[in-house]
Amino acid sequence: MAGDSFGTLFRFTSFGESHGPALGCVVEGTPPGVPLDVAAIQRALDRRKPGQSRFTTQRREDDAVEILSGVYEGLTTGTPIAFLIRNTDQRSHDYAAIAQRFRPGHADYTYWQKYGLRDPRGGGRSSARETAARVAAGALAEQVLRHLLGTGFLVRGALVEMGGVAIDRARWDWGETVRNPFFAPDAAIVPQWETLLDGVRKDGSSVGAVIEVEALGVPAGLGEPVYDRLDADLAKALMSINAVKGVEIGAGFASARLRGEQNADEMEPDGQGGVRFCSNNAGGILGGISSGQPVVARLAVKPTSSLLIPRHSVDTAGQPVEVVTKGRHDPCVGIRAVPVAEAMVSVCLLDHLLRFRGQCGARALPR
Amino acid sequence: MAGDSFGTLFRFTSFGESHGPALGCVVEGTPPGVPLDVAAIQRALDRRKPGQSRFTTQRREDDAVEILSGVYEGLTTGTPIAFLIRNTDQRSHDYAAIAQRFRPGHADYTYWQKYGLRDPRGGGRSSARETAARVAAGALAEQVLRHLLGTGFLVRGALVEMGGVAIDRARWDWGETVRNPFFAPDAAIVPQWETLLDGVRKDGSSVGAVIEVEALGVPAGLGEPVYDRLDADLAKALMSINAVKGVEIGAGFASARLRGEQNADEMEPDGQGGVRFCSNNAGGILGGISSGQPVVARLAVKPTSSLLIPRHSVDTAGQPVEVVTKGRHDPCVGIRAVPVAEAMVSVCLLDHLLRFRGQCGARALPR
Amino acid sequence: MAGDSFGTLFRFTSFGESHGPALGCVVEGTPPGVPLDVAAIQRALDRRKPGQSRFTTQRREDDAVEILSGVYEGLTTGTPIAFLIRNTDQRSHDYAAIAQRFRPGHADYTYWQKYGLRDPRGGGRSSARETAARVAAGALAEQVLRHLLGTGFLVRGALVEMGGVAIDRARWDWGETVRNPFFAPDAAIVPQWETLLDGVRKDGSSVGAVIEVEALGVPAGLGEPVYDRLDADLAKALMSINAVKGVEIGAGFASARLRGEQNADEMEPDGQGGVRFCSNNAGGILGGISSGQPVVARLAVKPTSSLLIPRHSVDTAGQPVEVVTKGRHDPCVGIRAVPVAEAMVSVCLLDHLLRFRGQCGARALPR
Amino acid sequence: MAGDSFGTLFRFTSFGESHGPALGCVVEGTPPGVPLDVAAIQRALDRRKPGQSRFTTQRREDDAVEILSGVYEGLTTGTPIAFLIRNTDQRSHDYAAIAQRFRPGHADYTYWQKYGLRDPRGGGRSSARETAARVAAGALAEQVLRHLLGTGFLVRGALVEMGGVAIDRARWDWGETVRNPFFAPDAAIVPQWETLLDGVRKDGSSVGAVIEVEALGVPAGLGEPVYDRLDADLAKALMSINAVKGVEIGAGFASARLRGEQNADEMEPDGQGGVRFCSNNAGGILGGISSGQPVVARLAVKPTSSLLIPRHSVDTAGQPVEVVTKGRHDPCVGIRAVPVAEAMVSVCLLDHLLRFRGQCGARALPR
Repeated sequence: MAGDSFGTLFRFTSFGESHGPALGCVVEGTPPGVPLDVAAIQRALDRRKPGQSRFTTQRREDDAVEILSGVYEGLTTGTPIAFLIRNTDQRSHDYAAIAQRFRPGHADYTYWQKYGLRDPRGGGRSSARETAARVAAGALAEQVLRHLLGTGFLVRGALVEMGGVAIDRARWDWGETVRNPFFAPDAAIVPQWETLLDGVRKDGSSVGAVIEVEALGVPAGLGEPVYDRLDADLAKALMSINAVKGVEIGAGFASARLRGEQNADEMEPDGQGGVRFCSNNAGGILGGISSGQPVVARLAVKPTSSLLIPRHSVDTAGQPVEVVTKGRHDPCVGIRAVPVAEAMVSVCLLDHLLRFRGQCGARALPR
Repeated sequence: MAGDSFGTLFRFTSFGESHGPALGCVVEGTPPGVPLDVAAIQRALDRRKPGQSRFTTQRREDDAVEILSGVYEGLTTGTPIAFLIRNTDQRSHDYAAIAQRFRPGHADYTYWQKYGLRDPRGGGRSSARETAARVAAGALAEQVLRHLLGTGFLVRGALVEMGGVAIDRARWDWGETVRNPFFAPDAAIVPQWETLLDGVRKDGSSVGAVIEVEALGVPAGLGEPVYDRLDADLAKALMSINAVKGVEIGAGFASARLRGEQNADEMEPDGQGGVRFCSNNAGGILGGISSGQPVVARLAVKPTSSLLIPRHSVDTAGQPVEVVTKGRHDPCVGIRAVPVAEAMVSVCLLDHLLRFRGQCGARALPR
Repeated sequence: MAGDSFGTLFRFTSFGESHGPALGCVVEGTPPGVPLDVAAIQRALDRRKPGQSRFTTQRREDDAVEILSGVYEGLTTGTPIAFLIRNTDQRSHDYAAIAQRFRPGHADYTYWQKYGLRDPRGGGRSSARETAARVAAGALAEQVLRHLLGTGFLVRGALVEMGGVAIDRARWDWGETVRNPFFAPDAAIVPQWETLLDGVRKDGSSVGAVIEVEALGVPAGLGEPVYDRLDADLAKALMSINAVKGVEIGAGFASARLRGEQNADEMEPDGQGGVRFCSNNAGGILGGISSGQPVVARLAVKPTSSLLIPRHSVDTAGQPVEVVTKGRHDPCVGIRAVPVAEAMVSVCLLDHLLRFRGQCGARALPR
Repeated sequence: MAGDSFGTLFRFTSFGESHGPALGCVVEGTPPGVPLDVAAIQRALDRRKPGQSRFTTQRREDDAVEILSGVYEGLTTGTPIAFLIRNTDQRSHDYAAIAQRFRPGHADYTYWQKYGLRDPRGGGRSSARETAARVAAGALAEQVLRHLLGTGFLVRGALVEMGGVAIDRARWDWGETVRNPFFAPDAAIVPQWETLLDGVRKDGSSVGAVIEVEALGVPAGLGEPVYDRLDADLAKALMSINAVKGVEIGAGFASARLRGEQNADEMEPDGQGGVRFCSNNAGGILGGISSGQPVVARLAVKPTSSLLIPRHSVDTAGQPVEVVTKGRHDPCVGIRAVPVAEAMVSVCLLDHLLRFRGQCGARALPR
């Protein structure tokens, strides 16, 4: 209710600023008895952490996670699991120049309007650094989902467009996403994006991106009509990620250009007593409830608002100023948003799995 | 938490099925002392109600609203306001043929998977008929917002694309939206869409649409970082509307194709101690908080899944069947979704206004 | 969040004023497929309804309930169930005299302070008439609980003290509670209470009461540490009933006078692989979680604040006035609070059962 | 929703086990711009911390609090404030003997039933050690309340009964509560309680207690009818404290023995345009809403269940066992519950103040 929590039965509450002592989150509602693989959570954080290639911010953070509660002898106990990540590479002096200036495209002006004051160091709470907490919660959620649903459950994301240059879906290979610094599922796009991003960095500019996330092995029945629909909650989850300006499910905006007979995914018996869908324009969600097909979402990430190119703005005294952002930052925040998007999808799905189990029992669940 | 409510401090809980005795909602958290214009709420419902042109479903419902509580001597009392709308034109026999069949693209299959049974009459709870409750709550919210913020506050929506045919934004005229059955802001598109939709109806097919909604006079400061952001809550609100598959804020997906210096909305002094933005790619929201600019959102509505063109499906026994939907329905549900989208935006904004006032006091508010 | 709802996964939202057109509630989260016995819900309402003996208010209300949604072919569908009860015997003129006066002990003054205006007719929203909505929701909850847990589940309440005259627990007979107008479990107390209450009515006075409620067949494991404990939620549920000023669980305040070795309920094997408790000072709840023993709660109900004996007060202009309440009312609101307390306990238990099932699966549940 | 959070607009989420690495909480919704007195928070924790007299557990914990976020240059920023308290004096070997045994009166059995496993070290999550997190959140809430309401606002608590020996209310002196280890407001009771408690410790037994808390300077208007009443939320808040078995507001259970004319607090003009109440049987709350009078609550704390006197129980294999609890513990947990009760009252009041301000604006507030 107060804004820093996500989820209902499975819920995490995050805290921390970019340049404060630490960030983290408290996760409530984890089912008990799940073996916790702490190393896997750290690996998820490592995928998101900065400084891993020349294409992301050069801030150096280990993002080493400490688990403070909720685990006993390697198993979740059902009580809150708190994650703590210390900040170690704050350089607050980088931000002194912009403490009294509102960086265009940033949250500086709106935080100041809302709260009457703000922590200017690295964007304070509005920094994407907060997303480390999401990744920790998401990695936990994914482990629980695999425990409950079996290894057929999987959430994975990819960058499908950067700076207006889209991948070729015919070349899609999920295996590629771990072999390049862009989470690109298309090996051939990598050199193009490298060149593009090197130019962007040289210009002191930035670019946007589009991310696609899919979840496999999601049982049918998740999602609460009519407001807490699975797609509505996914839209909220993904739109809450820093710099995201659009979300679509399945065919998304393209579905608005299809005829009804093209768009409606036909069904046929799967020969094993179940149903097979002939297409997935719905992105695995019908009437707000999962259908058993892969859940597919895409999100648009705007270009980083931190720029070396001067922009017109005003200061807190209302005077016109030019703003240049010299702090370390990502030329394309969309890249590191891929593991964040995966995390939010995992959290959403686990929350809805528990809600489904609560209201409806275990009807459709594998176990 | 249970899925049929939207909002926090200002919240409504809806009930009702397409062919049950009634639908409606209970609205909690209305500020006290607001003069309630019941006729205006009825007019809002009339904008959404079916059967107003040959381009919407021919079901005849007056959608006459009765207010059961929360108002005394014409003023809101602060206690729950319950809206009741009786269903009067149910023809349940229309749906007997599809009671055991899953209509492709509909929620039939997923409700059955989730609940183990379903009310097949007109789609039951999954019918867009539920959106009448949203419109009543939204019309109430808009009245309260205008009472609190002054007449500068305004929410309005338009259909900007139908069946892949977009309006010409250069001809945009909000005044047109009340003069045609499509809520089109472009008079010249109307005959094209009429022809298009007549053809679609003749074919027994359907088309999708794109809606744009904007809110003017929204004060800066609304939205709770980092999860209950205004844009995140708008995304949820709009994605929860039946048949919506995509939501974007401001430049949305297009922002992913802009450079940082193009996308970041520059600011300058407005000459009156405030700030003027030079563009609005952000759609009035920065860091999840309103900036004082117009809040702009777009949503993609898929084509109606009810079709006279036969589609392959399965029945509850797992057998292959052909499905044709003979019940009355809209060939383009996007049209009547315009007032629904406006309503959801109003509810979101009022909820966040009250939350802002709760945490921060009245710092930036006009009154 | 807005105050008129109770519960989380199973939640009801109530509406309605004492002298408005109607009252009722919307219940979200009912498990699907439960046969709904509408007559049983009506019977529960009849137990609470006014005018059944000379010991309750003489207002005549049938409290006939209409179900507007959420049921199809006699089974719950999992979608919201809306209950509507029309008011039929409002006599608002009775209350004109007190519209500008604050009745001592009533909510008149605090509603006026909070909202700046109030509906004076019969107390408006603060009237105990609202509790009819609770009874409908509770009767539904009890049916669902018996469906899920079996017929061993039972919630029942009794009046154990009125006007300072307590029953003799040695004579406790649950069967008696349906044979007298007081829900007294002790036949011998009935004539005493009749005499007492006749005198009270003659004096234009009122008396308080103590209610005891117990739930049998509650599985172990319900309740969420550490804030949403079962006892904490029961305390909230019962304290939210009009005129309740105290709640205790198990031995309650008496446990504060026991030594640890007297208070701690010893356990022994029950011979069937389970556990038997040797006493129940805990009232069936340990650490906020049900133990499988009967859940026992007591609540103190203050005397009705509506009196024919003049009381000093002030009016809305701040002038001293004498207040006499001539409207119809109960000389002991505690009597009719018995079915209300039962209802709130049922709602609490079902909500926690669903939450337990959500987080922990069905470990300890009978089915 | 998941159980480890309390509050709505102002909410804290706690984490941590008795013998885990740390405990703490994340507080959301703190109003911005409030000067934070960290030393005062530490002092509040020191009042609750163990080992301060021979009458509490001999565990030695500094309970030194670290603030991880939400504060910038000494002011609250409106973003989450995370409190971290490291555990330093765990002696887990003390608990090995009871890992497979259910201590009577403890949560051992119910946690095991609920979760299927439990952390036996010091009671794990069910330990009253968790209440340190509440005290930190409460001390913050109290500071905010004094900032918003002025220094007339005050929450204070006292032990009014221990082991069945009650204070003499005629001797009540709030000043005494800081001069003895019992928070007793009656100097003359202290030697009696010392003797009592020395005997209890020698016996390996324990005793219960009754606490009274009052809040002064609470404006009228706080509390949401009809479920989130101020008294209902206080009842939940206080009943959620470990070992509490009863809560009453104002005259509480005694009001059930009064006549209506005795119980209803008469009002008269206060000579300054306001209202003066002639008594406070209501405990400052009418119809669930604060009246402006002191808010008064009492809570019953059962005797500590940890005993050196052997008790019958069973083990996890269902076999009969004798249980003796050798770990360090308080002979009367009621003593250290006094600052915890104060903390919960502060949190409740701030949450309701923000909710009131959200829905109703600032009508009745001092500023």
